[in-house]
Amino acid sequence: MEYCSLCGKGTERMIPKGDTHHRYVCSSCGKIHYSNPKIIVGSIPIWEKKKVLLCKRSIEPGFGLWTLPSGFMENHESAEEGAIRETREEARANIQIQNLHTIYSIPHLSQVYLLFSSILMDSNFSPGEETLEVKLFGKDEIPWDQIAFSSVAFSLRHIWDKNREQIEDKPERTVYSGCFIKSDQKEESESIKKAKLNRPISS
Amino acid sequence: MEYCSLCGKGTERMIPKGDTHHRYVCSSCGKIHYSNPKIIVGSIPIWEKKKVLLCKRSIEPGFGLWTLPSGFMENHESAEEGAIRETREEARANIQIQNLHTIYSIPHLSQVYLLFSSILMDSNFSPGEETLEVKLFGKDEIPWDQIAFSSVAFSLRHIWDKNREQIEDKPERTVYSGCFIKSDQKEESESIKKAKLNRPISS
Repeated sequence: MEYCSLCGKGTERMIPKGDTHHRYVCSSCGKIHYSNPKIIVGSIPIWEKKKVLLCKRSIEPGFGLWTLPSGFMENHESAEEGAIRETREEARANIQIQNLHTIYSIPHLSQVYLLFSSILMDSNFSPGEETLEVKLFGKDEIPWDQIAFSSVAFSLRHIWDKNREQIEDKPERTVYSGCFIKSDQKEESESIKKAKLNRPISS
Repeated sequence: MEYCSLCGKGTERMIPKGDTHHRYVCSSCGKIHYSNPKIIVGSIPIWEKKKVLLCKRSIEPGFGLWTLPSGFMENHESAEEGAIRETREEARANIQIQNLHTIYSIPHLSQVYLLFSSILMDSNFSPGEETLEVKLFGKDEIPWDQIAFSSVAFSLRHIWDKNREQIEDKPERTVYSGCFIKSDQKEESESIKKAKLNRPISS
């Protein structure tokens, strides 16, 4: 942030009085500009307790790789509303939110993923603007080497754990209570790195 | 956002091509400025499975009211690290994170609270800079009419539900699995409204 968004004058980087972190502060009007992590909301749409809906991305990062429907949370919506909106936008799919499944922090990108377990309400889904293809995958059909993000891969590895309570009707398994928490230091998943290596330089 | 933080020229409010929301866009360099919800991270520090640690606020909003140790998540930390940091800063307390307990969205403020169940590791706690007093409260001692925020009140109403699994050793109770999700449209808790009404106009 070179310039103050309030008055247009130059900013400087400093720790304001009483603060613990460096901030951009306007040299003219004194406005302190805070920068904070962004939330990525998404869903894990489960079809008839057996399959999960994934989207093949039509944009970078991760062009041509599979992901859960997700995107940046917008102002003036709840996390659940954001997950429903992203699922509509990317997969044209209707879901019902069940619970928060995964909270996945990526500190070096200052991002937090909030991924919700959800029920896919019908089979009327189709690719949105940022999606090439939308498809249901069974437990043994997930394309592990073509998953776009480490956050999504982490969540997918745990969906059958989470759902096992319901599917196998073993409510005594409390090991799966609560959501899965993970903090990842890696910028890119192995799939994205591999995809980049295999992609023509012009793309 | 009146001015572009990149070049200092004026911005205009518009929906960029391919976008679905209004953004501030620089009239000069074309930079799109996104604004997204902020995360408030905090902990529910439980002492010997029986008491919860609360902080009496020394700042507005909610001056003189009780809250869970929490604050804005910073860049380059995980949500759990943020909750631990805020607990150290506000209550000078050491905790061990257990799981995410509450995700509480406040759409009209564009905030999401992430409050973590945690174990208070020792009784060495004391007020931080934004705190007047730090105190342990038993289940029947919580000052319900002096809780600063609706998010904190919501979470406190559910902590004993959540912990009952452990306290009463009834792992079959899966009704408490997963975290508690809530979206609140209210700006202020009843406690803050009441405190404002009762406060001298000069404060």
